[in-house]
Amino acid sequence: MTTRRTPTGAAVLQPEVTNAITEAVLDELAEVGFGRLSMEAVAKRAGVGKSALYRRWPSKDEMIGAVVAEFSVARAVDPDTGSLRGDLRATLDALYEWITHPRFSRILPGLIAEASRNPEMAAFSREAIGGPRRAISRAVFTRAIERGEIPADTDVELAQDIGAGIIYWRLIVRGVPAGEGYLDQVTDLVVRALSA
Amino acid sequence: MTTRRTPTGAAVLQPEVTNAITEAVLDELAEVGFGRLSMEAVAKRAGVGKSALYRRWPSKDEMIGAVVAEFSVARAVDPDTGSLRGDLRATLDALYEWITHPRFSRILPGLIAEASRNPEMAAFSREAIGGPRRAISRAVFTRAIERGEIPADTDVELAQDIGAGIIYWRLIVRGVPAGEGYLDQVTDLVVRALSA
Repeated sequence: MTTRRTPTGAAVLQPEVTNAITEAVLDELAEVGFGRLSMEAVAKRAGVGKSALYRRWPSKDEMIGAVVAEFSVARAVDPDTGSLRGDLRATLDALYEWITHPRFSRILPGLIAEASRNPEMAAFSREAIGGPRRAISRAVFTRAIERGEIPADTDVELAQDIGAGIIYWRLIVRGVPAGEGYLDQVTDLVVRALSA
Repeated sequence: MTTRRTPTGAAVLQPEVTNAITEAVLDELAEVGFGRLSMEAVAKRAGVGKSALYRRWPSKDEMIGAVVAEFSVARAVDPDTGSLRGDLRATLDALYEWITHPRFSRILPGLIAEASRNPEMAAFSREAIGGPRRAISRAVFTRAIERGEIPADTDVELAQDIGAGIIYWRLIVRGVPAGEGYLDQVTDLVVRALSA
């Protein structure tokens, strides 16, 4: 078997390798956290050399950021169900799945802690995670305004915080699991809070 | 000068030493975080020997827990202003001061991250921080029910999550500072959400 060296800068990145690394980053983050994650451990877990990591991302922080952002933004939704209540319920469902995800529920709190002491990580989170996620589900509220379900002068930024904040506070900050019917209850509350 | 050994178990703990240690724990936590805090660094910063720490708390985790819990529970309020709106506004004000406190805003996210991977820390947070804090401000809602401002069947547990969750999500999770009038706006929203 002959091997050919791909010219530098034109290397083809194999998607299955990228996937294996992505999974390894999420596994390592969930297991050891941001502070203790090492490129060596990620490479070993993915079954690749460290060079495979550096071909994709210039640094550990950029690798972590890209993986966490992709995981998070892929889980934002804009369900067009025809009503504010329906849209909200689907949005909160997706949020719940995201923050209680077996691996990610041990990653997100660490990311927020890291951002609280690292302004670059904070800026990255806002721009690459929060921003895109909110842009996706913002339409839920603009449609509700167009339909006349909520006032035209609704503060959409605040509106987007209500359900997410209530659920995050209970499940993650307080660490108290929610029972059946919880998301319906929160949905009703958000609709009530937004109605004139 | 003669020194007398105080009998073991009857040692008098000097409050000014306890205060110095408490401040040192908060400083160290804010600076290096939960994972990297060492008893040596706390003792050095407080200007005491390590034995002064161990006379007060049996372990590092218990020392951190006690200091963080005392700081947090002391900042919960039960303002009896005569109206739900007034009580809520004062409660949210105290919550805002707690979570945005210069040192503590760098401690709380780390505590939550720690709790997400350490069940003992999670149980401690619920029992020694969340529980007592919520017990203090619960009266805000029971008085509102007695006054007929909100329905008798109000879910007080959920009610307590609304304002705290919204504010924490914006300021800490999203990392977006709030402008003038923000707490009034959140207060209005909570009142609206709780009114039948």
